[in-house]
Amino acid sequence: MKIGFIGLGIMGTPMVKHLLEADHTLFVNSRSGLPPSLAGYQLTVCASGKQVAEQADAIITMLPDTPDVDAVLFGSKGVSEANLAGKVVVDMSSISPIETKKFANRIEQLGGHYLDAPVSGGEVGARAASLSIMVGGPQIIFEKMLPVLQLMGKNITRVGDNGDGQTAKVANQMVVALTIEAVGEALLFASHAGANPEMVRQALLGGFASSKILEVHGERMVKRTFDPGFRIALHQKDLNLALKSAQEMGLALPATALAQQLFNSCVAQGGEAWDHSAMICALERLSDFSISAQ
Amino acid sequence: MKIGFIGLGIMGTPMVKHLLEADHTLFVNSRSGLPPSLAGYQLTVCASGKQVAEQADAIITMLPDTPDVDAVLFGSKGVSEANLAGKVVVDMSSISPIETKKFANRIEQLGGHYLDAPVSGGEVGARAASLSIMVGGPQIIFEKMLPVLQLMGKNITRVGDNGDGQTAKVANQMVVALTIEAVGEALLFASHAGANPEMVRQALLGGFASSKILEVHGERMVKRTFDPGFRIALHQKDLNLALKSAQEMGLALPATALAQQLFNSCVAQGGEAWDHSAMICALERLSDFSISAQ
Repeated sequence: MKIGFIGLGIMGTPMVKHLLEADHTLFVNSRSGLPPSLAGYQLTVCASGKQVAEQADAIITMLPDTPDVDAVLFGSKGVSEANLAGKVVVDMSSISPIETKKFANRIEQLGGHYLDAPVSGGEVGARAASLSIMVGGPQIIFEKMLPVLQLMGKNITRVGDNGDGQTAKVANQMVVALTIEAVGEALLFASHAGANPEMVRQALLGGFASSKILEVHGERMVKRTFDPGFRIALHQKDLNLALKSAQEMGLALPATALAQQLFNSCVAQGGEAWDHSAMICALERLSDFSISAQ
Repeated sequence: MKIGFIGLGIMGTPMVKHLLEADHTLFVNSRSGLPPSLAGYQLTVCASGKQVAEQADAIITMLPDTPDVDAVLFGSKGVSEANLAGKVVVDMSSISPIETKKFANRIEQLGGHYLDAPVSGGEVGARAASLSIMVGGPQIIFEKMLPVLQLMGKNITRVGDNGDGQTAKVANQMVVALTIEAVGEALLFASHAGANPEMVRQALLGGFASSKILEVHGERMVKRTFDPGFRIALHQKDLNLALKSAQEMGLALPATALAQQLFNSCVAQGGEAWDHSAMICALERLSDFSISAQ
């Protein structure tokens, strides 16, 4: 398939490699030019989203935030300036569910199709082609693009119509943040009560308290390995999507709001680029006690 | 081994059966007499904790709350009125870590040994002998009692010294409550945003958001099956242990406090005996929106 790919960052670059290695024809565009690691591959570098969309049948975007996707799709020399009849836009960025529904509408009015297909799994998942992909959009378009998505991910679910993929991604990030807080408070309590937090973590694995977060992020908390992983600043962006949407919809999310405040506390401590498991540092500050104090 | 067992409720009764089926000699005591389901077995019914402790080498207690254990061990005709030299008290109830340390000290001063060994897994785990058991106490006593514990549970961890088993259990209950809240807020958000909560739940399984709670309690939230399971009133007791201990230790647990308030809201709705996954009902009340509204 002729595939366009816009956004060659730490996620986009390994994803493009998987598509190239499956013999797809790639038309790429990136604000920062072609990454050195793609130098040896045969692909076409385009000057704009419009140029990408003129040549490709499916256009994948993998960008940091909602305004970036807006600009690439609908800005000057954007994707929407090409003839989109029968073409598919697949936005794999993590952006606003509400804006996504508007973007999908606009692309369809131009004769194109739209899937929102945000991912979970980070750089490691992108490299290993093991990303979870949460898809919103028409079933028939999902089926058409599924073989392409399967080159980049493993747990691929069509959640529902346009926007529902992004909604699932926001929900995913809420669960992750709040489970980090759950594990953080529990380990802090146990440690302050005199127990060894690592032994408590092990005792809790296997029962109803077990989770991927207890396994991975719980270990990070005990070992104080806060190199990302997933940066707190990015998780703040995701929780902002939740809290902003919640306010617009008239929905109360008390624990999500609390988790965001704890991330704010981490940033106040200089932790913008720490791994999100470092939320424990904000909990520790509240009580002037560290689980590593023993 | 001559084993005493005090407390023949919904947990204790199946646990006693496993001990009997492994050919241990049982001396039992229960406030409410011998349950009918134990009628066919060969065991000795005792009139008091003292009588149990006079005849058994190890005395297991499985009782609702801290004052119950206190009364059975140190009250009139309690366990401590027997000669405890060389005997082991194993408290498998879920009670205060702080009081547990005092109980252990008193038993040791009487010449006995003490293990706190609270469990996770509920009635189902008790019946299947698959309980997680979190143990605090001396290593040598743990090793002595391990074969007996293995008749009742599977994931058996010595967390540390006396009290640490109960501390781990409280931490377990904190993680469970807060993860229920995480899943509840996320499904509520997704549903209010127009997505199908069951599809979102499925999309989140397998990634970093996955947990036993998302799997089991998430499904309960979607299907509205709030028969216990684990009663909200019992979970309130556990979070009270966390919050009371935290206040005594000088520790801030903001999300645990919030989760307790949401359980309070469930009780205000008449949900004392609902399964703890019904915390979603409190979140729904906050916004006058149910995830089953679609």
